[in-house]
Amino acid sequence: MPEAVDVRQRVLAANEEAARALREEFAASGTLVVNFISSPGSGKTTLLEATVARLGATVRLGVIEGDIATERDADRLRALGVPAHQILTGGACHLDARQVRAAAADAAYRTVDMLLIENVGNLICPTSYDLGEDFKVVVLSVTEGDDKPFKYPAIFARAEVAVISKVDLLPHVAFDLAAVREQISTLNPHAQIVLTSARTGEGVGEWCALLEARLAAKRAHRR
Amino acid sequence: MPEAVDVRQRVLAANEEAARALREEFAASGTLVVNFISSPGSGKTTLLEATVARLGATVRLGVIEGDIATERDADRLRALGVPAHQILTGGACHLDARQVRAAAADAAYRTVDMLLIENVGNLICPTSYDLGEDFKVVVLSVTEGDDKPFKYPAIFARAEVAVISKVDLLPHVAFDLAAVREQISTLNPHAQIVLTSARTGEGVGEWCALLEARLAAKRAHRR
Repeated sequence: MPEAVDVRQRVLAANEEAARALREEFAASGTLVVNFISSPGSGKTTLLEATVARLGATVRLGVIEGDIATERDADRLRALGVPAHQILTGGACHLDARQVRAAAADAAYRTVDMLLIENVGNLICPTSYDLGEDFKVVVLSVTEGDDKPFKYPAIFARAEVAVISKVDLLPHVAFDLAAVREQISTLNPHAQIVLTSARTGEGVGEWCALLEARLAAKRAHRR
Repeated sequence: MPEAVDVRQRVLAANEEAARALREEFAASGTLVVNFISSPGSGKTTLLEATVARLGATVRLGVIEGDIATERDADRLRALGVPAHQILTGGACHLDARQVRAAAADAAYRTVDMLLIENVGNLICPTSYDLGEDFKVVVLSVTEGDDKPFKYPAIFARAEVAVISKVDLLPHVAFDLAAVREQISTLNPHAQIVLTSARTGEGVGEWCALLEARLAAKRAHRR
Protein backbone atom coordinates (compact mmCIF):
# COMPACT_ATOMS: atom_id res chain seq x y z
CA MET A 1 0.00 0.00 0.00
CA PRO A 2 2.26 2.83 -1.30
CA GLU A 3 -0.13 5.53 -0.09
CA ALA A 4 0.26 4.32 3.48
CA VAL A 5 4.03 4.39 3.04
CA ASP A 6 3.85 8.00 1.81
CA VAL A 7 1.79 9.07 4.79
CA ARG A 8 4.15 7.29 7.16
CA GLN A 9 7.10 9.07 5.59
CA ARG A 10 5.40 12.43 6.01
CA VAL A 11 4.55 11.64 9.63
CA LEU A 12 8.18 10.68 10.27
CA ALA A 13 9.43 13.82 8.48
CA ALA A 14 7.19 16.02 10.65
CA ASN A 15 8.51 14.20 13.69
CA GLU A 16 12.12 14.75 12.62
CA GLU A 17 11.48 18.47 12.35
CA ALA A 18 10.03 18.68 15.87
CA ALA A 19 12.87 16.49 17.19
CA ARG A 20 15.46 18.81 15.62
CA ALA A 21 13.91 21.82 17.32
CA LEU A 22 13.80 19.98 20.65
CA ARG A 23 17.43 18.92 20.31
CA GLU A 24 18.47 22.54 19.75
CA GLU A 25 16.54 23.66 22.81
CA PHE A 26 18.12 20.95 24.95
CA ALA A 27 21.57 21.81 23.57
CA ALA A 28 21.05 25.42 24.57
CA SER A 29 19.95 24.49 28.09
CA GLY A 30 22.55 21.74 28.50
CA THR A 31 19.85 19.26 29.48
CA LEU A 32 20.73 15.58 29.02
CA VAL A 33 17.72 13.80 27.49
CA VAL A 34 17.27 10.04 27.62
CA ASN A 35 14.56 8.04 25.81
CA PHE A 36 13.70 4.76 27.58
CA ILE A 37 12.22 1.99 25.41
CA SER A 38 11.19 -1.53 26.38
CA SER A 39 8.39 -4.09 26.47
CA PRO A 40 5.61 -3.48 28.97
CA GLY A 41 6.69 -4.55 32.43
CA SER A 42 10.46 -4.72 31.95
CA GLY A 43 10.94 -2.24 34.78
CA LYS A 44 11.40 1.18 33.18
CA THR A 45 9.42 3.05 35.83
CA THR A 46 11.15 1.15 38.63
CA LEU A 47 14.54 2.04 37.10
CA LEU A 48 13.47 5.70 37.01
CA GLU A 49 12.42 5.51 40.67
CA ALA A 50 15.81 4.06 41.60
CA THR A 51 17.53 6.78 39.55
CA VAL A 52 15.60 9.54 41.30
CA ALA A 53 16.32 8.00 44.69
CA ARG A 54 20.05 7.96 43.97
CA LEU A 55 20.61 11.11 41.92
CA GLY A 56 17.72 13.31 42.98
CA ALA A 57 19.65 15.13 45.71
CA THR A 58 22.49 16.25 43.41
CA VAL A 59 20.99 16.39 39.92
CA ARG A 60 17.81 18.22 38.94
CA LEU A 61 15.69 15.56 37.28
CA GLY A 62 12.51 15.75 35.23
CA VAL A 63 10.42 12.89 33.90
CA ILE A 64 7.98 12.58 31.01
CA GLU A 65 5.84 9.44 30.91
CA GLY A 66 4.17 7.96 27.85
CA ASP A 67 1.27 5.53 28.16
CA ILE A 68 -1.84 4.43 26.32
CA ALA A 69 -3.91 4.95 29.44
CA THR A 70 -3.62 5.78 33.20
CA GLU A 71 -1.53 8.34 35.12
CA ARG A 72 0.03 5.62 37.28
CA ASP A 73 3.63 5.99 36.19
CA ALA A 74 3.71 9.78 36.51
CA ASP A 75 2.05 9.47 39.92
CA ARG A 76 4.83 7.12 41.06
CA LEU A 77 7.52 9.63 40.03
CA ARG A 78 5.70 12.68 41.39
CA ALA A 79 5.54 10.89 44.73
CA LEU A 80 9.35 11.14 44.76
CA GLY A 81 9.22 14.91 44.30
CA VAL A 82 10.28 15.26 40.66
CA PRO A 83 8.26 16.97 37.94
CA ALA A 84 6.54 14.20 35.96
CA HIS A 85 4.16 14.83 33.10
CA GLN A 86 2.00 12.00 31.82
CA ILE A 87 1.36 11.96 28.07
CA LEU A 88 -1.63 9.77 27.24
CA THR A 89 -1.34 8.66 23.64
CA GLY A 90 -4.86 7.25 23.31
CA GLY A 91 -4.22 4.31 21.07
CA ALA A 92 -0.81 5.29 19.73
CA CYS A 93 2.02 2.84 20.42
CA HIS A 94 4.82 5.43 20.81
CA LEU A 95 5.54 9.01 21.86
CA ASP A 96 6.29 11.60 19.20
CA ALA A 97 8.50 14.68 19.35
CA ARG A 98 5.61 17.14 19.23
CA GLN A 99 4.01 15.61 22.30
CA VAL A 100 7.33 15.77 24.13
CA ARG A 101 7.93 19.36 23.01
CA ALA A 102 4.51 20.43 24.30
CA ALA A 103 5.11 18.69 27.63
CA ALA A 104 8.67 20.00 28.00
CA ALA A 105 7.47 23.57 27.49
CA ASP A 106 6.13 23.47 31.05
CA ALA A 107 8.09 25.80 33.34
CA ALA A 108 8.86 22.88 35.69
CA TYR A 109 11.25 21.44 33.09
CA ARG A 110 13.11 24.66 32.32
CA THR A 111 15.76 24.12 34.98
CA VAL A 112 16.30 20.36 34.89
CA ASP A 113 19.73 18.84 34.25
CA MET A 114 18.37 15.54 32.99
CA LEU A 115 15.08 14.81 31.31
CA LEU A 116 14.15 11.13 31.46
CA ILE A 117 11.47 10.16 28.93
CA GLU A 118 9.73 6.84 29.46
CA ASN A 119 8.22 5.79 26.17
CA VAL A 120 5.08 3.67 25.73
CA GLY A 121 5.75 0.02 26.62
CA ASN A 122 6.61 -1.39 23.20
CA LEU A 123 9.82 -2.76 21.68
CA ILE A 124 8.86 -1.87 18.10
CA CYS A 125 6.97 1.35 17.36
CA PRO A 126 8.97 3.84 19.48
CA THR A 127 12.19 2.89 17.69
CA SER A 128 11.57 5.10 14.63
CA TYR A 129 10.48 8.24 16.50
CA ASP A 130 13.33 10.57 17.46
CA LEU A 131 12.33 12.57 20.55
CA GLY A 132 15.32 14.93 20.45
CA GLU A 133 17.09 12.71 22.97
CA ASP A 134 20.85 12.42 23.45
CA PHE A 135 20.53 8.64 23.42
CA LYS A 136 18.09 5.78 23.66
CA VAL A 137 18.18 3.18 26.43
CA VAL A 138 16.59 -0.20 25.83
CA VAL A 139 15.57 -2.11 28.96
CA LEU A 140 15.29 -5.91 28.80
CA SER A 141 14.32 -7.91 31.88
CA VAL A 142 15.80 -11.35 32.33
CA THR A 143 12.31 -12.84 32.56
CA GLU A 144 11.62 -11.92 28.91
CA GLY A 145 13.97 -14.55 27.53
CA ASP A 146 17.40 -14.53 25.94
CA ASP A 147 16.23 -14.48 22.31
CA LYS A 148 14.95 -10.91 22.34
CA PRO A 149 17.78 -8.79 20.81
CA PHE A 150 17.75 -10.77 17.54
CA LYS A 151 13.93 -10.87 17.54
CA TYR A 152 13.69 -7.07 17.94
CA PRO A 153 16.91 -5.99 16.24
CA ALA A 154 16.07 -2.37 15.39
CA ILE A 155 15.89 -1.07 18.94
CA PHE A 156 18.97 -2.99 20.08
CA ALA A 157 20.90 -1.62 17.09
CA ARG A 158 19.90 1.98 17.88
CA ALA A 159 20.08 2.10 21.68
CA GLU A 160 23.45 3.30 22.94
CA VAL A 161 22.76 1.70 26.30
CA ALA A 162 21.12 -1.63 27.10
CA VAL A 163 19.96 -2.18 30.67
CA ILE A 164 19.41 -5.83 31.58
CA SER A 165 16.98 -5.56 34.48
CA LYS A 166 15.62 -7.82 37.25
CA VAL A 167 18.93 -9.71 37.49
CA ASP A 168 17.88 -10.82 40.99
CA LEU A 169 15.54 -13.25 39.18
CA LEU A 170 18.38 -14.92 37.22
CA PRO A 171 18.44 -17.97 39.54
CA HIS A 172 14.76 -18.62 38.76
CA VAL A 173 14.68 -18.29 34.96
CA ALA A 174 16.50 -19.73 31.96
CA PHE A 175 18.40 -16.72 30.60
CA ASP A 176 21.77 -17.04 28.87
CA LEU A 177 23.42 -13.72 29.70
CA ALA A 178 26.47 -14.40 27.52
CA ALA A 179 24.23 -15.09 24.52
CA VAL A 180 22.32 -11.85 25.09
CA ARG A 181 25.55 -9.85 25.39
CA GLU A 182 26.73 -11.37 22.12
CA GLN A 183 23.47 -10.57 20.30
CA ILE A 184 23.55 -6.97 21.52
CA SER A 185 27.20 -6.54 20.56
CA THR A 186 26.52 -7.99 17.11
CA LEU A 187 23.70 -5.49 16.56
CA ASN A 188 25.58 -2.55 18.09
CA PRO A 189 29.29 -3.04 18.82
CA HIS A 190 29.41 0.24 20.79
CA ALA A 191 26.45 -0.46 23.06
CA GLN A 192 27.08 -0.13 26.78
CA ILE A 193 25.45 -2.94 28.74
CA VAL A 194 24.50 -2.47 32.40
CA LEU A 195 22.98 -5.17 34.63
CA THR A 196 20.57 -3.92 37.28
CA SER A 197 18.23 -5.06 39.98
CA ALA A 198 16.08 -2.34 41.43
CA ARG A 199 15.13 -4.84 44.12
CA THR A 200 18.65 -5.51 45.45
CA GLY A 201 20.21 -2.27 44.21
CA GLU A 202 22.75 -4.16 42.09
CA GLY A 203 24.04 -2.06 39.21
CA VAL A 204 22.07 1.06 40.12
CA GLY A 205 25.30 2.84 41.08
CA GLU A 206 26.94 1.93 37.79
CA TRP A 207 23.83 3.03 35.87
CA CYS A 208 23.68 6.39 37.66
CA ALA A 209 27.43 6.94 37.15
CA LEU A 210 26.86 6.37 33.43
CA LEU A 211 24.14 9.05 33.41
CA GLU A 212 26.34 11.49 35.33
CA ALA A 213 29.26 10.89 32.96
CA ARG A 214 27.01 11.52 29.95
CA LEU A 215 25.71 14.73 31.52
CA ALA A 216 29.26 15.91 32.27
CA ALA A 217 30.32 15.11 28.70
CA LYS A 218 27.41 17.09 27.26
CA ARG A 219 28.17 20.08 29.47
CA ALA A 220 31.91 19.92 28.66
CA HIS A 221 31.15 19.79 24.94
CA ARG A 222 28.95 22.87 25.33
CA ARG A 223 31.64 25.09 26.86
CA MET B 1 -3.27 14.40 10.66
CA PRO B 2 -6.65 13.43 9.11
CA GLU B 3 -4.99 11.99 5.99
CA ALA B 4 -3.14 9.44 8.14
CA VAL B 5 -6.43 8.56 9.84
CA ASP B 6 -8.07 7.99 6.44
CA VAL B 7 -5.27 5.69 5.32
CA ARG B 8 -5.44 3.78 8.59
CA GLN B 9 -9.18 3.32 8.16
CA ARG B 10 -8.69 1.98 4.65
CA VAL B 11 -5.96 -0.39 5.85
CA LEU B 12 -8.28 -1.65 8.60
CA ALA B 13 -11.19 -2.00 6.15
CA ALA B 14 -9.03 -4.09 3.80
CA ASN B 15 -8.01 -6.21 6.78
CA GLU B 16 -11.64 -6.72 7.81
CA GLU B 17 -12.45 -8.00 4.35
CA ALA B 18 -9.62 -10.54 4.40
CA ALA B 19 -10.58 -11.55 7.96
CA ARG B 20 -14.18 -12.15 6.91
CA ALA B 21 -13.06 -14.43 4.09
CA LEU B 22 -10.75 -16.31 6.46
CA ARG B 23 -13.51 -16.71 9.05
CA GLU B 24 -15.79 -18.23 6.41
CA GLU B 25 -13.08 -20.67 5.35
CA PHE B 26 -12.45 -21.69 8.95
CA ALA B 27 -16.20 -22.05 9.58
CA ALA B 28 -16.45 -24.38 6.60
CA SER B 29 -13.53 -26.51 7.76
CA GLY B 30 -14.54 -26.42 11.43
CA THR B 31 -11.07 -25.23 12.41
CA LEU B 32 -10.83 -23.43 15.78
CA VAL B 33 -8.59 -20.40 15.35
CA VAL B 34 -6.95 -18.63 18.28
CA ASN B 35 -5.00 -15.35 18.11
CA PHE B 36 -2.37 -15.03 20.88
CA ILE B 37 -1.35 -11.49 21.86
CA SER B 38 1.11 -10.36 24.53
CA SER B 39 4.23 -8.36 25.29
CA PRO B 40 7.52 -9.82 24.09
CA GLY B 41 8.69 -12.51 26.47
CA SER B 42 5.46 -13.26 28.31
CA GLY B 43 5.66 -16.89 27.26
CA LYS B 44 3.39 -17.29 24.23
CA THR B 45 5.71 -19.71 22.42
CA THR B 46 6.29 -21.71 25.58
CA LEU B 47 2.52 -21.95 26.11
CA LEU B 48 2.15 -23.21 22.54
CA GLU B 49 4.86 -25.81 23.15
CA ALA B 50 3.04 -27.00 26.28
CA THR B 51 -0.23 -27.11 24.32
CA VAL B 52 1.29 -29.21 21.55
CA ALA B 53 2.88 -31.55 24.10
CA ARG B 54 -0.48 -32.12 25.78
CA LEU B 55 -2.96 -32.05 22.89
CA GLY B 56 -0.81 -33.02 19.93
CA ALA B 57 -1.62 -36.73 20.12
CA THR B 58 -5.39 -36.25 19.98
CA VAL B 59 -5.95 -32.93 18.18
CA ARG B 60 -4.46 -31.96 14.81
CA LEU B 61 -2.69 -28.67 15.54
CA GLY B 62 -1.19 -26.05 13.26
CA VAL B 63 0.78 -22.97 14.24
CA ILE B 64 1.43 -19.64 12.52
CA GLU B 65 4.12 -17.44 14.04
CA GLY B 66 4.47 -13.68 13.62
CA ASP B 67 7.74 -11.91 14.30
CA ILE B 68 9.71 -8.88 13.18
CA ALA B 69 12.75 -11.05 12.57
CA THR B 70 14.11 -14.63 13.04
CA GLU B 71 12.54 -18.05 12.46
CA ARG B 72 13.19 -19.09 16.06
CA ASP B 73 9.62 -19.52 17.22
CA ALA B 74 8.48 -21.54 14.21
CA ASP B 75 11.61 -23.70 14.56
CA ARG B 76 10.66 -24.44 18.18
CA LEU B 77 7.19 -25.62 17.16
CA ARG B 78 8.34 -27.56 14.10
CA ALA B 79 10.68 -29.45 16.40
CA LEU B 80 7.54 -30.81 18.08
CA GLY B 81 6.20 -32.11 14.78
CA VAL B 82 3.43 -29.60 14.04
CA PRO B 83 3.19 -27.49 10.88
CA ALA B 84 4.51 -24.03 11.81
CA HIS B 85 4.83 -21.19 9.33
CA GLN B 86 6.86 -18.14 10.29
CA ILE B 87 5.55 -14.82 8.98
CA LEU B 88 8.27 -12.16 9.11
CA THR B 89 6.63 -8.76 9.20
CA GLY B 90 9.76 -6.74 8.52
CA GLY B 91 9.11 -3.70 10.68
CA ALA B 92 5.37 -4.13 11.21
CA CYS B 93 4.20 -4.50 14.80
CA HIS B 94 1.30 -6.90 14.14
CA LEU B 95 0.08 -9.63 11.81
CA ASP B 96 -2.67 -8.86 9.32
CA ALA B 97 -5.39 -11.10 7.90
CA ARG B 98 -3.89 -11.22 4.42
CA GLN B 99 -0.60 -12.56 5.73
CA VAL B 100 -2.46 -15.21 7.71
CA ARG B 101 -4.63 -16.12 4.74
CA ALA B 102 -1.58 -16.59 2.51
CA ALA B 103 0.13 -18.73 5.15
CA ALA B 104 -2.99 -20.78 5.92
CA ALA B 105 -3.42 -21.63 2.22
CA ASP B 106 -0.55 -24.10 2.61
CA ALA B 107 -1.76 -27.69 2.26
CA ALA B 108 -0.30 -28.52 5.68
CA TYR B 109 -3.05 -26.49 7.34
CA ARG B 110 -5.98 -27.93 5.40
CA THR B 111 -6.62 -30.73 7.87
CA VAL B 112 -5.91 -29.10 11.22
CA ASP B 113 -8.51 -28.97 13.99
CA MET B 114 -6.97 -25.95 15.71
CA LEU B 115 -4.88 -23.17 14.24
CA LEU B 116 -2.89 -21.31 16.88
CA ILE B 117 -1.64 -17.92 15.68
CA GLU B 118 1.10 -16.28 17.72
CA ASN B 119 1.05 -12.57 16.95
CA VAL B 120 4.06 -10.24 17.04
CA GLY B 121 5.12 -9.50 20.63
CA ASN B 122 3.20 -6.30 21.28
CA LEU B 123 0.30 -5.44 23.60
CA ILE B 124 -0.96 -2.60 21.44
CA CYS B 125 -0.83 -2.87 17.63
CA PRO B 126 -2.23 -6.40 17.12
CA THR B 127 -5.40 -5.49 19.01
CA SER B 128 -7.10 -3.77 16.05
CA TYR B 129 -6.32 -6.42 13.43
CA ASP B 130 -8.90 -9.19 13.16
CA LEU B 131 -7.23 -12.36 11.83
CA GLY B 132 -10.44 -14.30 11.33
CA GLU B 133 -9.94 -15.94 14.73
CA ASP B 134 -12.65 -17.41 16.94
CA PHE B 135 -11.20 -15.56 19.91
CA LYS B 136 -8.18 -13.66 21.13
CA VAL B 137 -6.05 -14.78 24.07
CA VAL B 138 -3.97 -12.22 25.94
CA VAL B 139 -0.99 -13.61 27.85
CA LEU B 140 0.39 -11.65 30.82
CA SER B 141 3.33 -12.98 32.81
CA VAL B 142 3.46 -12.25 36.53
CA THR B 143 6.87 -10.62 36.10
CA GLU B 144 5.34 -7.81 34.02
CA GLY B 145 3.61 -6.20 36.99
CA ASP B 146 0.06 -6.00 38.21
CA ASP B 147 -0.81 -2.64 36.63
CA LYS B 148 -0.93 -3.89 33.04
CA PRO B 149 -4.63 -4.49 32.27
CA PHE B 150 -5.57 -0.89 33.02
CA LYS B 151 -2.46 0.39 31.21
CA TYR B 152 -3.29 -1.62 28.06
CA PRO B 153 -7.08 -1.74 28.30
CA ALA B 154 -7.99 -2.41 24.66
CA ILE B 155 -6.51 -5.90 24.44
CA PHE B 156 -7.82 -6.95 27.85
CA ALA B 157 -11.29 -5.71 26.87
CA ARG B 158 -11.25 -7.70 23.61
CA ALA B 159 -9.57 -10.95 24.63
CA GLU B 160 -12.07 -13.64 25.64
CA VAL B 161 -9.35 -15.47 27.54
CA ALA B 162 -6.53 -14.07 29.69
CA VAL B 163 -3.67 -16.40 30.54
CA ILE B 164 -1.59 -15.31 33.53
CA SER B 165 1.70 -17.05 32.88
CA LYS B 166 4.88 -17.87 34.83
CA VAL B 167 2.94 -18.26 38.09
CA ASP B 168 5.85 -20.33 39.42
CA LEU B 169 7.64 -16.96 39.80
CA LEU B 170 4.92 -15.48 42.06
CA PRO B 171 6.99 -16.01 45.24
CA HIS B 172 9.81 -13.90 43.76
CA VAL B 173 7.90 -10.88 42.43
CA ALA B 174 5.40 -8.31 43.68
CA PHE B 175 2.24 -9.17 41.77
CA ASP B 176 -1.23 -8.67 43.22
CA LEU B 177 -3.23 -11.41 41.53
CA ALA B 178 -6.56 -10.27 43.00
CA ALA B 179 -5.98 -6.75 41.66
CA VAL B 180 -5.22 -8.12 38.19
CA ARG B 181 -8.34 -10.29 38.21
CA GLU B 182 -10.38 -7.25 39.17
CA GLN B 183 -8.90 -5.09 36.41
CA ILE B 184 -9.53 -7.79 33.81
CA SER B 185 -13.10 -8.35 35.00
CA THR B 186 -13.76 -4.61 34.92
CA LEU B 187 -12.56 -4.40 31.32
CA ASN B 188 -14.29 -7.62 30.24
CA PRO B 189 -16.77 -9.19 32.65
CA HIS B 190 -16.97 -12.35 30.54
CA ALA B 191 -13.23 -12.97 30.26
CA GLN B 192 -12.02 -16.41 31.30
CA ILE B 193 -8.82 -16.22 33.35
CA VAL B 194 -6.41 -19.16 33.48
CA LEU B 195 -3.21 -19.28 35.56
CA THR B 196 -0.36 -21.27 34.05
CA SER B 197 3.23 -22.24 34.56
CA ALA B 198 4.80 -24.02 31.64
CA ARG B 199 7.69 -24.80 33.99
CA THR B 200 5.71 -26.73 36.62
CA GLY B 201 2.79 -27.65 34.37
CA GLU B 202 0.31 -25.85 36.62
CA GLY B 203 -2.82 -24.83 34.74
CA VAL B 204 -1.78 -26.41 31.43
CA GLY B 205 -4.50 -29.04 31.81
CA GLU B 206 -7.15 -26.41 32.49
CA TRP B 207 -5.92 -24.35 29.53
CA CYS B 208 -6.02 -27.33 27.15
CA ALA B 209 -9.47 -28.34 28.41
CA LEU B 210 -10.67 -24.83 27.60
CA LEU B 211 -9.33 -25.18 24.04
CA GLU B 212 -10.95 -28.58 23.62
CA ALA B 213 -14.29 -27.27 24.90
CA ARG B 214 -14.16 -24.36 22.48
CA LEU B 215 -13.37 -26.72 19.61
CA ALA B 216 -16.24 -29.02 20.57
CA ALA B 217 -18.60 -26.02 20.79
CA LYS B 218 -17.58 -24.81 17.33
CA ARG B 219 -18.07 -28.27 15.82
CA ALA B 220 -21.46 -28.71 17.59
CA HIS B 221 -22.60 -25.33 16.32
CA ARG B 222 -21.62 -26.38 12.79
CA ARG B 223 -23.74 -29.51 12.73
